[in-house]
Amino acid sequence: MIKAVFFDLDDTIVDTTRLAEMARRNAIENMIRHGLPVDFDTAYGELLELISEYGSNFPRHFDYLLRRLELPYNPKWVSAGVIAYHNTKIAYLKSVRGARRTLLRLKKEGYVLGIITDGDPVKQWEKILRLELGEYFDHVFISDELGVKKPHPKIFQKALQKANLKAGEAVMVGDRLYSDIYGAKRVGMTTIWFRYGKYADRELEYRKYADFTISSLEEVPGIVGRFNCEEEKRSSDKEVHPD
Amino acid sequence: MIKAVFFDLDDTIVDTTRLAEMARRNAIENMIRHGLPVDFDTAYGELLELISEYGSNFPRHFDYLLRRLELPYNPKWVSAGVIAYHNTKIAYLKSVRGARRTLLRLKKEGYVLGIITDGDPVKQWEKILRLELGEYFDHVFISDELGVKKPHPKIFQKALQKANLKAGEAVMVGDRLYSDIYGAKRVGMTTIWFRYGKYADRELEYRKYADFTISSLEEVPGIVGRFNCEEEKRSSDKEVHPD
Repeated sequence: MIKAVFFDLDDTIVDTTRLAEMARRNAIENMIRHGLPVDFDTAYGELLELISEYGSNFPRHFDYLLRRLELPYNPKWVSAGVIAYHNTKIAYLKSVRGARRTLLRLKKEGYVLGIITDGDPVKQWEKILRLELGEYFDHVFISDELGVKKPHPKIFQKALQKANLKAGEAVMVGDRLYSDIYGAKRVGMTTIWFRYGKYADRELEYRKYADFTISSLEEVPGIVGRFNCEEEKRSSDKEVHPD
Repeated sequence: MIKAVFFDLDDTIVDTTRLAEMARRNAIENMIRHGLPVDFDTAYGELLELISEYGSNFPRHFDYLLRRLELPYNPKWVSAGVIAYHNTKIAYLKSVRGARRTLLRLKKEGYVLGIITDGDPVKQWEKILRLELGEYFDHVFISDELGVKKPHPKIFQKALQKANLKAGEAVMVGDRLYSDIYGAKRVGMTTIWFRYGKYADRELEYRKYADFTISSLEEVPGIVGRFNCEEEKRSSDKEVHPD
Protein backbone atom coordinates (compact mmCIF):
# COMPACT_ATOMS: atom_id res chain seq x y z
CA MET A 1 0.00 0.00 0.00
CA ILE A 2 1.52 3.32 -1.14
CA LYS A 3 1.28 5.92 1.61
CA ALA A 4 3.88 8.46 0.50
CA VAL A 5 5.14 10.10 -2.70
CA PHE A 6 8.65 11.58 -2.84
CA PHE A 7 9.70 13.93 -5.60
CA ASP A 8 13.02 15.08 -6.92
CA LEU A 9 13.17 18.90 -7.00
CA ASP A 10 15.07 20.14 -10.09
CA ASP A 11 13.28 19.51 -13.38
CA THR A 12 10.63 17.51 -11.56
CA ILE A 13 8.88 20.08 -9.34
CA VAL A 14 10.86 23.20 -10.32
CA ASP A 15 11.61 24.02 -13.95
CA THR A 16 15.32 24.50 -13.39
CA THR A 17 17.07 23.80 -16.71
CA ARG A 18 14.91 26.14 -18.76
CA LEU A 19 15.34 28.86 -16.14
CA ALA A 20 19.12 28.45 -16.02
CA GLU A 21 19.32 28.72 -19.78
CA MET A 22 17.28 31.94 -19.81
CA ALA A 23 19.34 33.36 -16.96
CA ARG A 24 22.63 32.60 -18.73
CA ARG A 25 21.47 34.08 -22.03
CA ASN A 26 20.27 37.24 -20.30
CA ALA A 27 23.55 37.50 -18.39
CA ILE A 28 25.61 37.43 -21.58
CA GLU A 29 23.30 39.94 -23.25
CA ASN A 30 23.64 42.35 -20.34
CA MET A 31 27.43 41.98 -20.27
CA ILE A 32 27.55 42.87 -23.98
CA ARG A 33 25.20 45.79 -23.40
CA HIS A 34 27.67 47.12 -20.82
CA GLY A 35 30.62 46.85 -23.13
CA LEU A 36 31.84 43.23 -23.23
CA PRO A 37 33.60 43.27 -26.62
CA VAL A 38 32.56 39.79 -27.81
CA ASP A 39 29.65 38.55 -29.93
CA PHE A 40 26.82 36.68 -28.22
CA ASP A 41 27.47 33.21 -29.64
CA THR A 42 31.16 33.23 -28.73
CA ALA A 43 30.54 34.37 -25.17
CA TYR A 44 27.53 32.09 -24.60
CA GLY A 45 29.36 29.06 -26.01
CA GLU A 46 32.33 29.74 -23.77
CA LEU A 47 30.07 30.11 -20.73
CA LEU A 48 28.38 26.76 -21.40
CA GLU A 49 31.76 25.07 -21.75
CA LEU A 50 32.93 26.65 -18.51
CA ILE A 51 29.80 25.48 -16.67
CA SER A 52 30.19 21.94 -17.97
CA GLU A 53 33.78 21.91 -16.70
CA TYR A 54 33.36 23.69 -13.35
CA GLY A 55 29.77 22.72 -12.53
CA SER A 56 26.66 24.86 -12.29
CA ASN A 57 27.20 25.76 -8.62
CA PHE A 58 30.67 27.25 -9.22
CA PRO A 59 30.39 30.78 -7.83
CA ARG A 60 32.74 32.60 -10.21
CA HIS A 61 31.37 31.86 -13.70
CA PHE A 62 31.57 35.42 -14.97
CA ASP A 63 35.09 36.14 -13.67
CA TYR A 64 36.33 32.95 -15.31
CA LEU A 65 34.47 33.75 -18.52
CA LEU A 66 36.57 36.92 -18.91
CA ARG A 67 39.76 34.89 -18.36
CA ARG A 68 38.70 32.34 -20.98
CA LEU A 69 37.94 35.13 -23.43
CA GLU A 70 41.41 36.58 -22.66
CA LEU A 71 39.86 39.85 -21.53
CA PRO A 72 41.06 41.98 -18.61
CA TYR A 73 39.13 41.63 -15.36
CA ASN A 74 36.28 44.13 -15.32
CA PRO A 75 33.92 44.22 -12.31
CA LYS A 76 31.37 46.22 -14.30
CA TRP A 77 30.93 43.39 -16.80
CA VAL A 78 30.86 40.77 -14.05
CA SER A 79 28.25 42.80 -12.21
CA ALA A 80 26.15 43.19 -15.38
CA GLY A 81 26.19 39.40 -15.74
CA VAL A 82 25.33 38.77 -12.09
CA ILE A 83 22.44 41.27 -12.11
CA ALA A 84 20.77 39.84 -15.23
CA TYR A 85 21.35 36.28 -14.04
CA HIS A 86 19.73 36.86 -10.63
CA ASN A 87 16.92 39.03 -11.97
CA THR A 88 15.97 36.27 -14.40
CA LYS A 89 16.22 33.53 -11.78
CA ILE A 90 13.93 35.46 -9.45
CA ALA A 91 11.44 36.73 -12.02
CA TYR A 92 11.03 33.55 -14.06
CA LEU A 93 11.24 30.84 -11.42
CA LYS A 94 8.34 28.50 -12.20
CA SER A 95 7.08 25.13 -11.08
CA VAL A 96 6.88 22.39 -13.72
CA ARG A 97 3.57 22.35 -15.59
CA GLY A 98 0.99 20.45 -13.55
CA ALA A 99 3.19 20.20 -10.44
CA ARG A 100 1.00 22.25 -8.15
CA ARG A 101 -2.22 20.56 -9.31
CA THR A 102 -0.64 17.14 -8.80
CA LEU A 103 0.63 17.95 -5.32
CA LEU A 104 -2.76 19.33 -4.31
CA ARG A 105 -4.55 16.24 -5.56
CA LEU A 106 -2.16 13.85 -3.79
CA LYS A 107 -2.47 15.91 -0.61
CA LYS A 108 -6.28 15.78 -0.79
CA GLU A 109 -6.13 12.01 -1.24
CA GLY A 110 -4.16 11.77 1.99
CA TYR A 111 -0.65 10.90 0.80
CA VAL A 112 2.43 11.97 2.71
CA LEU A 113 4.54 14.12 0.37
CA GLY A 114 8.27 14.69 0.37
CA ILE A 115 11.26 16.00 -1.54
CA ILE A 116 14.50 14.06 -1.98
CA THR A 117 17.00 16.26 -3.79
CA ASP A 118 20.71 16.82 -4.29
CA GLY A 119 22.22 20.27 -4.01
CA ASP A 120 22.95 23.12 -1.67
CA PRO A 121 20.30 23.21 1.11
CA VAL A 122 19.90 27.00 1.18
CA LYS A 123 19.57 27.21 -2.62
CA GLN A 124 17.09 24.31 -2.74
CA TRP A 125 14.97 25.83 0.02
CA GLU A 126 15.12 29.13 -1.81
CA LYS A 127 13.33 27.56 -4.78
CA ILE A 128 10.73 25.89 -2.54
CA LEU A 129 10.02 29.04 -0.52
CA ARG A 130 10.04 31.46 -3.46
CA LEU A 131 7.41 29.28 -5.16
CA GLU A 132 5.55 28.94 -1.85
CA LEU A 133 5.58 25.16 -2.17
CA GLY A 134 6.72 24.54 1.41
CA GLU A 135 3.25 23.77 2.74
CA TYR A 136 2.76 20.79 0.43
CA PHE A 137 5.70 18.81 1.73
CA ASP A 138 5.79 16.92 5.01
CA HIS A 139 9.48 16.10 4.51
CA VAL A 140 12.37 17.70 2.65
CA PHE A 141 15.64 15.79 2.36
CA ILE A 142 18.62 17.53 0.77
CA SER A 143 21.82 15.64 0.07
CA ASP A 144 24.31 18.28 1.22
CA GLU A 145 22.53 18.41 4.56
CA LEU A 146 22.67 14.63 5.01
CA GLY A 147 26.21 14.32 3.63
CA VAL A 148 25.22 11.74 1.02
CA LYS A 149 24.01 12.14 -2.58
CA LYS A 150 21.58 10.25 -4.76
CA PRO A 151 21.68 7.46 -5.89
CA HIS A 152 23.35 6.37 -2.62
CA PRO A 153 20.87 4.11 -0.76
CA LYS A 154 21.44 6.00 2.49
CA ILE A 155 19.60 9.14 1.41
CA PHE A 156 16.51 7.10 0.48
CA GLN A 157 16.77 4.93 3.60
CA LYS A 158 17.10 8.00 5.80
CA ALA A 159 14.05 9.55 4.15
CA LEU A 160 11.99 6.39 4.73
CA GLN A 161 13.18 6.08 8.30
CA LYS A 162 12.50 9.72 9.21
CA ALA A 163 9.07 9.55 7.58
CA ASN A 164 8.43 6.25 9.38
CA LEU A 165 7.72 4.30 6.18
CA LYS A 166 8.63 0.94 4.71
CA ALA A 167 10.14 1.01 1.21
CA GLY A 168 7.05 -0.70 -0.17
CA GLU A 169 4.92 2.18 1.06
CA ALA A 170 6.77 4.87 -0.88
CA VAL A 171 7.04 6.08 -4.47
CA MET A 172 9.90 8.10 -5.91
CA VAL A 173 9.19 10.43 -8.85
CA GLY A 174 12.14 11.97 -10.69
CA ASP A 175 13.59 12.98 -14.05
CA ARG A 176 16.93 11.20 -13.66
CA LEU A 177 17.09 7.48 -14.28
CA TYR A 178 20.40 7.11 -12.48
CA SER A 179 20.07 9.19 -9.33
CA ASP A 180 16.31 9.10 -8.79
CA ILE A 181 15.05 5.86 -10.32
CA TYR A 182 17.98 3.45 -9.93
CA GLY A 183 18.67 4.95 -6.48
CA ALA A 184 15.13 4.53 -5.16
CA LYS A 185 14.61 1.11 -6.74
CA ARG A 186 17.70 -0.28 -5.02
CA VAL A 187 16.13 0.32 -1.61
CA GLY A 188 12.81 -1.17 -2.72
CA MET A 189 10.71 1.89 -3.46
CA THR A 190 8.25 2.02 -6.37
CA THR A 191 9.65 4.28 -9.08
CA ILE A 192 8.07 6.68 -11.56
CA TRP A 193 10.38 8.11 -14.20
CA PHE A 194 9.30 11.58 -15.30
CA ARG A 195 10.67 11.75 -18.83
CA TYR A 196 11.29 15.46 -18.94
CA GLY A 197 13.93 18.06 -19.72
CA LYS A 198 17.53 17.42 -20.61
CA TYR A 199 17.57 13.91 -19.12
CA ALA A 200 14.64 12.65 -21.21
CA ASP A 201 17.02 10.66 -23.43
CA ARG A 202 19.98 10.06 -21.15
CA GLU A 203 21.05 7.27 -18.82
CA LEU A 204 18.67 4.93 -20.64
CA GLU A 205 20.69 1.93 -19.44
CA TYR A 206 18.93 2.44 -16.09
CA ARG A 207 15.48 2.42 -17.61
CA LYS A 208 14.77 -1.09 -16.32
CA TYR A 209 14.60 0.33 -12.78
CA ALA A 210 11.56 2.46 -13.65
CA ASP A 211 8.26 0.82 -12.69
CA PHE A 212 6.34 3.52 -14.56
CA THR A 213 7.24 6.18 -17.12
CA ILE A 214 5.26 9.42 -17.42
CA SER A 215 5.47 12.52 -19.56
CA SER A 216 3.23 14.62 -17.29
CA LEU A 217 3.23 14.87 -13.50
CA GLU A 218 -0.55 14.73 -13.59
CA GLU A 219 -0.30 11.00 -14.30
CA VAL A 220 1.10 10.37 -10.81
CA PRO A 221 -2.16 10.31 -8.76
CA GLY A 222 -3.76 7.85 -11.20
CA ILE A 223 -0.76 5.52 -11.14
CA VAL A 224 -0.59 5.52 -7.35
CA GLY A 225 -4.37 5.07 -7.06
CA ARG A 226 -4.44 2.08 -9.47
CA PHE A 227 -1.40 0.53 -7.77
CA ASN A 228 -3.14 0.64 -4.39
CA CYS A 229 -6.41 -0.61 -5.83
CA GLU A 230 -4.70 -3.61 -7.44
CA GLU A 231 -2.77 -4.39 -4.29
CA GLU A 232 -5.97 -4.30 -2.29
CA LYS A 233 -7.55 -6.66 -4.79
CA ARG A 234 -4.58 -9.04 -4.61
CA SER A 235 -4.66 -9.16 -0.83
CA SER A 236 -8.46 -9.70 -0.71
CA ASP A 237 -8.15 -12.43 -3.37
CA LYS A 238 -5.60 -14.15 -1.11
CA GLU A 239 -7.99 -13.97 1.83
CA VAL A 240 -10.79 -15.55 -0.23
CA HIS A 241 -8.58 -18.33 -1.69
CA PRO A 242 -5.96 -19.04 0.95
CA ASP A 243 -5.08 -22.42 -0.70
CA MET B 1 39.66 75.97 -11.40
CA ILE B 2 37.50 72.97 -10.48
CA LYS B 3 37.07 70.65 -13.45
CA ALA B 4 35.95 67.42 -11.79
CA VAL B 5 33.67 66.29 -8.96
CA PHE B 6 34.26 62.91 -7.30
CA PHE B 7 31.63 61.32 -5.10
CA ASP B 8 31.71 58.60 -2.51
CA LEU B 9 29.09 55.90 -3.32
CA ASP B 10 27.46 54.54 -0.14
CA ASP B 11 25.23 57.05 1.67
CA THR B 12 26.36 59.77 -0.73
CA ILE B 13 24.97 58.65 -4.10
CA VAL B 14 23.21 55.41 -3.03
CA ASP B 15 21.02 55.28 0.08
CA THR B 16 22.78 52.26 1.53
CA THR B 17 22.29 52.37 5.30
CA ARG B 18 18.53 52.78 5.18
CA LEU B 19 18.29 49.97 2.64
CA ALA B 20 20.43 47.62 4.70
CA GLU B 21 18.29 48.25 7.77
CA MET B 22 15.09 47.47 5.86
CA ALA B 23 16.64 44.36 4.34
CA ARG B 24 17.77 43.05 7.73
CA ARG B 25 14.41 43.69 9.37
CA ASN B 26 12.58 41.94 6.53
CA ALA B 27 15.02 39.03 6.72
CA ILE B 28 14.32 38.46 10.42
CA GLU B 29 10.56 38.78 9.85
CA ASN B 30 10.65 36.17 7.09
CA MET B 31 12.76 33.79 9.18
CA ILE B 32 10.19 34.04 12.00
CA ARG B 33 7.37 33.53 9.50
CA HIS B 34 9.03 30.29 8.46
CA GLY B 35 9.37 29.01 11.99
CA LEU B 36 12.39 30.64 13.65
CA PRO B 37 11.36 30.25 17.30
CA VAL B 38 12.62 33.63 18.57
CA ASP B 39 10.92 37.02 18.99
CA PHE B 40 11.79 39.81 16.57
CA ASP B 41 13.73 42.07 18.93
CA THR B 42 15.97 39.28 20.22
CA ALA B 43 16.81 38.03 16.72
CA TYR B 44 17.28 41.50 15.22
CA GLY B 45 19.46 42.66 18.11
CA GLU B 46 21.63 39.57 17.78
CA LEU B 47 21.95 40.12 14.01
CA LEU B 48 23.09 43.73 14.49
CA GLU B 49 25.68 42.63 17.05
CA LEU B 50 26.91 39.92 14.68
CA ILE B 51 27.24 42.41 11.81
CA SER B 52 29.16 44.87 13.96
CA GLU B 53 31.58 42.09 14.89
CA TYR B 54 31.96 40.33 11.53
CA GLY B 55 31.35 43.25 9.17
CA SER B 56 28.52 43.86 6.74
CA ASN B 57 30.14 41.97 3.88
CA PHE B 58 30.47 38.72 5.86
CA PRO B 59 28.64 36.16 3.69
CA ARG B 60 27.22 33.92 6.43
CA HIS B 61 25.19 36.24 8.67
CA PHE B 62 22.14 34.02 8.88
CA ASP B 63 24.04 30.78 9.56
CA TYR B 64 25.93 32.50 12.36
CA LEU B 65 22.74 34.06 13.70
CA LEU B 66 21.36 30.55 14.35
CA ARG B 67 24.56 29.59 16.17
CA ARG B 68 24.41 32.71 18.33
CA LEU B 69 20.78 31.97 19.17
CA GLU B 70 21.84 28.40 20.08
CA LEU B 71 19.46 26.96 17.50
CA PRO B 72 20.15 23.95 15.28
CA TYR B 73 21.23 24.70 11.71
CA ASN B 74 18.18 24.96 9.48
CA PRO B 75 18.64 25.77 5.78
CA LYS B 76 14.95 26.67 5.46
CA TRP B 77 15.32 29.52 7.96
CA VAL B 78 18.61 30.66 6.39
CA SER B 79 16.97 30.62 2.99
CA ALA B 80 13.97 32.61 4.26
CA GLY B 81 16.40 35.24 5.55
CA VAL B 82 18.41 35.33 2.32
CA ILE B 83 15.30 35.65 0.12
CA ALA B 84 13.79 38.55 2.07
CA TYR B 85 17.17 40.27 2.34
CA HIS B 86 17.84 40.12 -1.40
CA ASN B 87 14.27 40.94 -2.42
CA THR B 88 14.41 44.07 -0.29
CA LYS B 89 17.84 45.09 -1.55
CA ILE B 90 16.69 44.77 -5.15
CA ALA B 91 13.22 46.30 -4.78
CA TYR B 92 14.11 49.25 -2.55
CA LEU B 93 17.52 50.28 -3.87
CA LYS B 94 17.32 54.05 -4.24
CA SER B 95 19.66 56.92 -4.97
CA VAL B 96 20.01 59.58 -2.27
CA ARG B 97 17.44 62.38 -2.59
CA GLY B 98 18.66 64.92 -5.14
CA ALA B 99 21.56 62.79 -6.37
CA ARG B 100 20.33 62.32 -9.92
CA ARG B 101 19.34 65.97 -10.34
CA THR B 102 22.73 67.08 -9.02
CA LEU B 103 24.67 64.75 -11.31
CA LEU B 104 22.65 65.89 -14.30
CA ARG B 105 23.26 69.55 -13.52
CA LEU B 106 27.01 69.07 -13.02
CA LYS B 107 27.16 67.07 -16.24
CA LYS B 108 25.34 69.80 -18.16
CA GLU B 109 27.77 72.35 -16.78
CA GLY B 110 30.63 70.35 -18.21
CA TYR B 111 32.25 68.83 -15.13
CA VAL B 112 34.02 65.49 -15.23
CA LEU B 113 32.27 63.17 -12.75
CA GLY B 114 33.67 60.23 -10.85
CA ILE B 115 33.16 57.78 -8.01
CA ILE B 116 35.81 56.97 -5.42
CA THR B 117 34.50 54.23 -3.15
CA ASP B 118 35.60 51.44 -0.86
CA GLY B 119 34.10 47.98 -1.14
CA ASP B 120 33.73 44.93 -3.32
CA PRO B 121 33.93 46.00 -7.01
CA VAL B 122 31.15 43.69 -8.25
CA LYS B 123 28.80 44.74 -5.44
CA GLN B 124 29.55 48.45 -5.95
CA TRP B 125 28.99 48.17 -9.71
CA GLU B 126 25.79 46.29 -8.99
CA LYS B 127 24.40 49.36 -7.20
CA ILE B 128 25.53 51.70 -9.99
CA LEU B 129 24.12 49.55 -12.79
CA ARG B 130 20.86 48.65 -11.05
CA LEU B 131 20.18 52.37 -10.57
CA GLU B 132 21.32 53.03 -14.15
CA LEU B 133 23.77 55.65 -12.92
CA GLY B 134 26.69 54.35 -14.99
CA GLU B 135 26.29 56.92 -17.77
CA TYR B 136 26.86 59.87 -15.44
CA PHE B 137 30.34 58.85 -14.38
CA ASP B 138 33.48 59.21 -16.47
CA HIS B 139 35.53 57.36 -13.86
CA VAL B 140 34.79 54.77 -11.19
CA PHE B 141 37.53 53.89 -8.69
CA ILE B 142 36.87 51.07 -6.22
CA SER B 143 39.31 50.34 -3.42
CA ASP B 144 39.31 46.55 -3.65
CA GLU B 145 40.19 46.81 -7.32
CA LEU B 146 43.12 49.16 -6.65
CA GLY B 147 44.27 47.28 -3.53
CA VAL B 148 44.15 50.39 -1.34
CA LYS B 149 41.34 51.88 0.76
CA LYS B 150 40.27 55.40 1.64
CA PRO B 151 41.66 57.52 3.31
CA HIS B 152 44.99 56.27 1.88
CA PRO B 153 46.39 59.04 -0.38
CA LYS B 154 47.12 56.51 -3.14
CA ILE B 155 43.47 55.94 -4.08
CA PHE B 156 42.91 59.69 -4.52
CA GLN B 157 46.23 60.17 -6.32
CA LYS B 158 45.47 57.30 -8.66
CA ALA B 159 42.05 58.77 -9.41
CA LEU B 160 43.57 62.18 -10.21
CA GLN B 161 46.28 60.65 -12.34
CA LYS B 162 43.95 58.41 -14.35
CA ALA B 163 41.54 61.30 -14.89
CA ASN B 164 44.49 63.53 -15.82
CA LEU B 165 43.76 66.15 -13.18
CA LYS B 166 45.72 68.20 -10.66
CA ALA B 167 44.48 68.00 -7.05
CA GLY B 168 43.41 71.65 -7.22
CA GLU B 169 41.10 70.83 -10.10
CA ALA B 170 39.06 68.24 -8.20
CA VAL B 171 36.40 68.16 -5.50
CA MET B 172 35.59 65.19 -3.28
CA VAL B 173 32.04 64.86 -1.91
CA GLY B 174 31.38 62.26 0.78
CA ASP B 175 29.54 61.45 4.02
CA ARG B 176 32.58 60.26 5.98
CA LEU B 177 34.88 62.84 7.49
CA TYR B 178 37.69 60.36 7.97
CA SER B 179 37.83 58.36 4.75
CA ASP B 180 36.38 60.87 2.27
CA ILE B 181 37.19 64.33 3.62
CA TYR B 182 40.47 63.83 5.51
CA GLY B 183 41.64 61.46 2.77
CA ALA B 184 40.97 63.85 -0.12
CA LYS B 185 42.21 66.93 1.72
CA ARG B 186 45.58 65.30 2.39
CA VAL B 187 46.26 65.07 -1.34
CA GLY B 188 45.12 68.66 -1.90
CA MET B 189 41.59 68.22 -3.23
CA THR B 190 38.75 70.57 -2.30
CA THR B 191 36.39 68.78 0.08
CA ILE B 192 32.62 68.88 0.58
CA TRP B 193 31.30 66.99 3.58
CA PHE B 194 27.79 65.66 3.02
CA ARG B 195 26.41 65.54 6.54
CA TYR B 196 24.06 62.62 6.04
CA GLY B 197 23.12 59.22 7.44
CA LYS B 198 24.79 57.40 10.27
CA TYR B 199 28.05 59.37 10.00
CA ALA B 200 26.36 62.79 10.38
CA ASP B 201 27.66 63.08 13.94
CA ARG B 202 30.73 60.87 13.90
CA GLU B 203 34.44 61.43 13.34
CA LEU B 204 33.92 65.12 14.09
CA GLU B 205 37.61 65.46 14.97
CA TYR B 206 38.26 65.46 11.21
CA ARG B 207 35.79 68.25 10.55
CA LYS B 208 38.58 70.78 10.01
CA TYR B 209 39.45 69.02 6.73
CA ALA B 210 36.05 69.90 5.23
CA ASP B 211 36.13 73.03 3.06
CA PHE B 212 32.35 73.01 2.83
CA THR B 213 29.54 71.22 4.68
CA ILE B 214 26.20 70.46 3.04
CA SER B 215 22.98 68.78 4.09
CA SER B 216 21.70 68.30 0.51
CA LEU B 217 23.59 67.16 -2.58
CA GLU B 218 21.83 69.88 -4.55
CA GLU B 219 24.14 72.43 -2.90
CA VAL B 220 27.15 70.98 -4.77
CA PRO B 221 26.75 72.72 -8.17
CA GLY B 222 26.35 76.14 -6.47
CA ILE B 223 29.44 75.64 -4.29
CA VAL B 224 31.58 74.54 -7.23
CA GLY B 225 30.25 77.37 -9.42
CA ARG B 226 30.96 80.04 -6.79
CA PHE B 227 34.41 78.57 -6.09
CA ASN B 228 35.34 78.83 -9.77
CA CYS B 229 33.85 82.31 -10.11
CA GLU B 230 35.87 83.58 -7.14
CA GLU B 231 39.04 81.97 -8.41
CA GLU B 232 38.52 83.59 -11.80
CA LYS B 233 38.04 86.95 -10.09
CA ARG B 234 41.20 86.46 -8.01
CA SER B 235 43.29 85.62 -11.06
CA SER B 236 41.88 88.54 -13.11
CA ASP B 237 42.49 90.86 -10.12
CA LYS B 238 46.09 89.69 -10.12
CA GLU B 239 46.41 90.47 -13.83
CA VAL B 240 44.97 93.98 -13.36
CA HIS B 241 47.09 94.73 -10.29
CA PRO B 242 50.26 92.72 -10.74
CA ASP B 243 51.85 94.88 -7.96
